[in-house]
Amino acid sequence: MTNPIPSKLAMVPFVSVDNMMKIVNSIGIEKLLGELAIYIEDDFKRWEIFDKTPRVAAHSAEGVIELMPTSDGEVYGFKYVNGHPKNQQEGFQTVTAFGVLAKVSNGYPVLFSEMTILTALRTATTSALVARYLAPKNSKTMAMIGNGAQCEFQALAFKAICGIDTVNLYDIDQKATAKAVKNLSDQGIKAIACSSSEEAMSGAQIITTCTADKQYATILTDNMVGSGVHINAIGGDCPGKTELHRDILLRSEIFVEYPPQTRIEGEIQQLDDDYQVTEIWQVMTGIAEGRQSESQITLFDSVGFAIEDFSALRYILDQLSRTGNYIDLDLIADPDDTRDLFGMIQRAQDPSSGVSSAS
Amino acid sequence: MTNPIPSKLAMVPFVSVDNMMKIVNSIGIEKLLGELAIYIEDDFKRWEIFDKTPRVAAHSAEGVIELMPTSDGEVYGFKYVNGHPKNQQEGFQTVTAFGVLAKVSNGYPVLFSEMTILTALRTATTSALVARYLAPKNSKTMAMIGNGAQCEFQALAFKAICGIDTVNLYDIDQKATAKAVKNLSDQGIKAIACSSSEEAMSGAQIITTCTADKQYATILTDNMVGSGVHINAIGGDCPGKTELHRDILLRSEIFVEYPPQTRIEGEIQQLDDDYQVTEIWQVMTGIAEGRQSESQITLFDSVGFAIEDFSALRYILDQLSRTGNYIDLDLIADPDDTRDLFGMIQRAQDPSSGVSSAS
Repeated sequence: MTNPIPSKLAMVPFVSVDNMMKIVNSIGIEKLLGELAIYIEDDFKRWEIFDKTPRVAAHSAEGVIELMPTSDGEVYGFKYVNGHPKNQQEGFQTVTAFGVLAKVSNGYPVLFSEMTILTALRTATTSALVARYLAPKNSKTMAMIGNGAQCEFQALAFKAICGIDTVNLYDIDQKATAKAVKNLSDQGIKAIACSSSEEAMSGAQIITTCTADKQYATILTDNMVGSGVHINAIGGDCPGKTELHRDILLRSEIFVEYPPQTRIEGEIQQLDDDYQVTEIWQVMTGIAEGRQSESQITLFDSVGFAIEDFSALRYILDQLSRTGNYIDLDLIADPDDTRDLFGMIQRAQDPSSGVSSAS
Repeated sequence: MTNPIPSKLAMVPFVSVDNMMKIVNSIGIEKLLGELAIYIEDDFKRWEIFDKTPRVAAHSAEGVIELMPTSDGEVYGFKYVNGHPKNQQEGFQTVTAFGVLAKVSNGYPVLFSEMTILTALRTATTSALVARYLAPKNSKTMAMIGNGAQCEFQALAFKAICGIDTVNLYDIDQKATAKAVKNLSDQGIKAIACSSSEEAMSGAQIITTCTADKQYATILTDNMVGSGVHINAIGGDCPGKTELHRDILLRSEIFVEYPPQTRIEGEIQQLDDDYQVTEIWQVMTGIAEGRQSESQITLFDSVGFAIEDFSALRYILDQLSRTGNYIDLDLIADPDDTRDLFGMIQRAQDPSSGVSSAS
């Protein structure tokens, strides 16, 4: 009658931080970034079929906690993510995240995963994937302004996906730059510490800004940006947080993920609500044009969208059988008779029932 | 330099289904229901300070997947819950759920828990708690129409919280009634199988309807309901799903959790959008009156609200040290240097770094 251990239906695979690191290291980070790009590109190409909701945000004085749900009609996914700028000073991560995939047909979760590392991977992959459509042909050098937690992921994603061989690093904190140079020293990419943004941008075809300033900031001013570059703007990602001077936006062709969200959170919060922008999925499907000339400045105003997390979770789900790096969690109550939840609890109490502990 | 095992900061307590059953059985279900009522009542009494969002629902042909977030300014919580009426036929639970509590100040999760069982507990507790304010004094008998997964929890919550000693059971499926009679046989409550709703309601001061019909149904018609009773309507909880004839609503004083949600999901979807209803938290705080006369019919049009889940998760969090029934999950990436996420992954690869596997 009773199940001796929780049945298969009760179980949801869980990928811990430790197992996520094992997945990254067993596949190899560059290979993983390249494979993940295929998942993200596939989902961007079927953009229209997704349920797209703006994030559900709970704001407080200290930061924000957000839920980011989406669905392609067969699979449902959501990410929990916080953003607390002051966390770093207190020894906590600014951003932590976890996520879930579930079957739309029965609502059962099929994956529960850490997403702090996975978000870093998907952000870098999305940046590089978009740059493959927008950056000048044969770009070899990227300037990386802001050398925090996202920096090395960006460098390796652009190496793996766009063929970059040099990254010029600058951060107002030299220790951050030194950390990045050290971490990238054996990764097959030339990582050069620079003493100013200008120095970092010299000779770069791609400029990535990824700073953590909470307030409106001007990491790049108009006179710093020459023609023909691709700007990958990562750091401006919440209301009141931007990195680029408005004049740069006006000189650029702007590409975004999901305009209703980007107009609130991205660099374009500095522009009018009807300012013309191009949705990047339309470039990928061929509906819209990407780079139109060598002299054009292209700007990816990236804020991160739920579909990218969905793609990343899909990718990790597909790696479970390949790597085995997960454990099963007894998350779903699975009584023999679905109407007999109470009886299941009663029987768990009775040692003669044969119900044993699984976790 | 590196942490030999994931640090304390990386860990989030997880309560599995198995551990939730252990918590229920070690505390004792009636004692637990009584204690949980205190948490729910406390939170209803500070209703105004909560962030209240309608659920974020993803509808499909087969069912719905919902996220239910709320926050009291210090603690944030959300529940993931599905509702798939056809699941039961296929051996799956109609409703499964899990939930999270997190600190608003830094966004870190502090509890991850199964909530299929916990939702059953909090629904029954809320029903009984509300009945303590609304039901006729010295109610001893409850009619229970619909004897599915929620049935025994309702019976025991009304026993523990309202002092009910008899429950008259009726279900269109006699097997469901037989299951409930058997499960309640040694619980110190008289459980009587009835052959019709009318028989079950005979002599009952409290009428609980908890059927699973998806369509508009009329479990109770007007002529079946005498004066002076309290109706606890649980089953009408989504658009298109109601249990009571509209005429009963018109004869009753109606109490609800959160009007914007109940008007969409509850029995009152049959009434005009401005039909007068009373928020139950106002009865608990003394702002509004509850039962006003012996002959009045009071109706709790219950759909379940995020704050009840929040209270339930708070209660479980407080039981962890008491019962020890949880495991720690390595959910939060916790590098020594918060900017060095990449370095953490690299070091995990290098066996000489001393990083070991924890999960």
